[in-house]
Amino acid sequence: MWPLAVLLVTCIFTQSQCAQDVLEERNDLLERELAMMVGSSIKLSDSELKANEIIMKLKHEEMDHGFIYPNQFNVSKHFFEYKDEVMKTKLFQIIQRMPKGAVLHAHDIGLLSPDYVLALTYWEDLWFCRTEDKSKIEFHFSKTTPVNRCATKWIFMKDARNASGDVKKFDAELRKYFTIVIDNPNEVYTDVNAVWQRFQEYFNSCGNLFSYKPVYEQYYYDTLVEFRKDEIMYIEIRSTLPSLYDLDGNVYDSVETAKSYKRVTEKFMRDYPDSFGAKLIYAPMKLVDKATLQEYIRIALEIQTLMPDFLVGFDLVGQEDLGVPLREFIHELAEVRERLDFYLHAGETNWYGTTSDENLFDAIVLGTKRIGHGFALIKHPLLMEEVKKRQIALEVNVVSNNVLKLVEDPRNHPLATYLSQNIPVLLSSDNPGVWESLPMSHDFYVTFVGVASRHADLRLIKQLALNSLYYSSYPDKHKLVHEFEIRWTKFIDTIVKGKW
Amino acid sequence: MWPLAVLLVTCIFTQSQCAQDVLEERNDLLERELAMMVGSSIKLSDSELKANEIIMKLKHEEMDHGFIYPNQFNVSKHFFEYKDEVMKTKLFQIIQRMPKGAVLHAHDIGLLSPDYVLALTYWEDLWFCRTEDKSKIEFHFSKTTPVNRCATKWIFMKDARNASGDVKKFDAELRKYFTIVIDNPNEVYTDVNAVWQRFQEYFNSCGNLFSYKPVYEQYYYDTLVEFRKDEIMYIEIRSTLPSLYDLDGNVYDSVETAKSYKRVTEKFMRDYPDSFGAKLIYAPMKLVDKATLQEYIRIALEIQTLMPDFLVGFDLVGQEDLGVPLREFIHELAEVRERLDFYLHAGETNWYGTTSDENLFDAIVLGTKRIGHGFALIKHPLLMEEVKKRQIALEVNVVSNNVLKLVEDPRNHPLATYLSQNIPVLLSSDNPGVWESLPMSHDFYVTFVGVASRHADLRLIKQLALNSLYYSSYPDKHKLVHEFEIRWTKFIDTIVKGKW
Repeated sequence: MWPLAVLLVTCIFTQSQCAQDVLEERNDLLERELAMMVGSSIKLSDSELKANEIIMKLKHEEMDHGFIYPNQFNVSKHFFEYKDEVMKTKLFQIIQRMPKGAVLHAHDIGLLSPDYVLALTYWEDLWFCRTEDKSKIEFHFSKTTPVNRCATKWIFMKDARNASGDVKKFDAELRKYFTIVIDNPNEVYTDVNAVWQRFQEYFNSCGNLFSYKPVYEQYYYDTLVEFRKDEIMYIEIRSTLPSLYDLDGNVYDSVETAKSYKRVTEKFMRDYPDSFGAKLIYAPMKLVDKATLQEYIRIALEIQTLMPDFLVGFDLVGQEDLGVPLREFIHELAEVRERLDFYLHAGETNWYGTTSDENLFDAIVLGTKRIGHGFALIKHPLLMEEVKKRQIALEVNVVSNNVLKLVEDPRNHPLATYLSQNIPVLLSSDNPGVWESLPMSHDFYVTFVGVASRHADLRLIKQLALNSLYYSSYPDKHKLVHEFEIRWTKFIDTIVKGKW
Repeated sequence: MWPLAVLLVTCIFTQSQCAQDVLEERNDLLERELAMMVGSSIKLSDSELKANEIIMKLKHEEMDHGFIYPNQFNVSKHFFEYKDEVMKTKLFQIIQRMPKGAVLHAHDIGLLSPDYVLALTYWEDLWFCRTEDKSKIEFHFSKTTPVNRCATKWIFMKDARNASGDVKKFDAELRKYFTIVIDNPNEVYTDVNAVWQRFQEYFNSCGNLFSYKPVYEQYYYDTLVEFRKDEIMYIEIRSTLPSLYDLDGNVYDSVETAKSYKRVTEKFMRDYPDSFGAKLIYAPMKLVDKATLQEYIRIALEIQTLMPDFLVGFDLVGQEDLGVPLREFIHELAEVRERLDFYLHAGETNWYGTTSDENLFDAIVLGTKRIGHGFALIKHPLLMEEVKKRQIALEVNVVSNNVLKLVEDPRNHPLATYLSQNIPVLLSSDNPGVWESLPMSHDFYVTFVGVASRHADLRLIKQLALNSLYYSSYPDKHKLVHEFEIRWTKFIDTIVKGKW
């Protein structure tokens, strides 16, 4: 009944005791808060503790230098300014070697580097059509001049390249269409629309380059190879399932494209038996009318019936502020939610209280399994509780959110808060090829050094990798986690032995 | 015992009923969340409802246009780019007329416009000293050439101005020393250190201009006049209490400067009996050793003894990342916390998990009455609970945080989250003169249009004004709120009658 009174008396009469109480309360609060953070429940083994020491020394060196010289701190800047430079750091190289679990938010043809795409233009039978001012380009594979509309005229790629006189220059010009990376992003990409327009142009330009069936299948196969190299065990890939074509005039519909994904996944798993392969989320464009949405749903259900083990669910994609709000589709989606799992994009916006912001409400009540992005969730206290209660993981794409102009400085990314509150989160990379980042290493690096607390250590990044497994739709998670732990132990050994 | 089962059955068998349930849940969540927001407990009168309609129409027009054309939305940009333009909008003009309560976070000589400071250089007996490259300037009032050190030579202001041949040009050049506003802030102010250096230079340049006792007192008097014009009822001003000087070689110490503040406040209240005046927070620089801090505390206690009704407490100021962490001073501060109230700056940083970030812990356990800034609080879930529990208000300075490079886009300011969770907050303006904003109108405008939800209405800004009264240290809050309500009613009438 009397502790408070005693405390007050103590404070008034013995000052140093009082300071001691204040200090104890401070440290208690700090410790309790650190115990709430993502990863805090992990107990590190002796080896992990050693590895942690090495990693934290490197992280603290980078942060503490930046704290004094903020203009030299990479991760507060635009991603394009530091993406290559950081790859030379020891810390990045360790993260590259780290098993990162699964990638659960990645889009079909935004995954491989412009150099890879450039190499595709060396394939046989490729034609291109460029506007007069060269601002836009299209491609088509064909034995003869394509019949598709062209504002100028169709040119045979091989001939043009040979005739160019300077293949290096020719290729360098071509490569620009396959990336949104530029030298002065802050001047050119002044707002979300400006950068999305350029981003969208990538998909438009490359549409028929990729939708040539042999290319599409090869691109996907090579994606799986690339992601495996970046220590990814498993992928849930989102695809719009575009129609594919071949040289014989055949057109393959979305169901056939889904079959391509399944077939290539199976081939990849035969070639790389250590991989856990991939599953598919059908994710067509969200700027459509209700009839088109109904058709999408019909396709999703058809694919699900054909390959129930491969298709995990449904999503809608595209620039969220310009898309149709989920609210408009709530009847259509509610009707199938018992039969089709949702993995909906929501809250990829900083327009608080608008329709795109409130897609978060719709996604949650529709029972989405995970939320794509959830950038705006931080402004919704009740929804933050709901995602915790319902265990709906946020697929957070830190680099994407910087590049696509949601947040300039990653230190202000809401993920910092999600981590601090143990909101269910996992990292992903969205379209790493388009902004020339590695499949997952950059996103882990930026999160670890730029977003998370200075105190956040190996436990945080281990937990984030584990979360990508826990919140995946892989049927046998136990097996996945077991294999992860084996690889993790090897990784830790490598660090401790200084072999990175 | 069976509602869940019934609900599931309902959903499976009658689809449209199911969609209805989803929609109801959505709307319920949305409403419950809006009911958590700052201002939601306010019931608007009929007149207020009419005024609200007018205000919300204007707000929605601005936001909805920006939602479609984000590059035309002012409040996502650097403050310098839109500060003048927005003043022409109806919404801004309404906000200018709105009673805004109290200003509880504002610094001594950062409050008036560069034009005002320029006019001070027309005072008699002023000398200046400029470095060869003109990058730095100093001033001194003196009957004869000042004896203070000067890198070049002391020049008599009146003579220099007369000899310049072009007074307009002369004054325009001089004015640049009195503002940090420039045309290309994003190129020049590339990081927090760069802008703070320029900001600090303002105080260095103007130090002896302001610390001439007659100027200091006049500046403060005119501050009270300017703030009153911007519909401020009451101020708690932070001051470093610099030594002042006069033409007779007298030097006045901090206690004397505090007396100047009190005397001028009393004169102002006689001249403007409708004002509630001001109180003082002694806030010297935080980059000091313990002995200096002890001396500060001694001065604070001396002033408190001399003018217990005028000094409300103590704070420490300066760029937080470069200052001494509160942790270092915890013993000294804990010892006096029963005798001296604290109004501590804390968390004015985006370096998560560093010493400056953790000043938040120290400030709270030291029993601070309010927190200056609290920008980083969003990364501290336990501390967010604590400030609610202990009713420690955050003095949020949105424009300052943009200008001083904590957040590029106000839509990402953590205040959005604080508002959504009803964290105790109030708005303030820090050093509005240095970045040429109005005393409080810009901060209210940016918060209302750029930070808060599209749904946030008159109740939000009324509550924010009321919070500045509730969380002030004015002894008779009832009187303050009563007078506020009278002015508020008049304001509402003016809007409803279309007389703004």
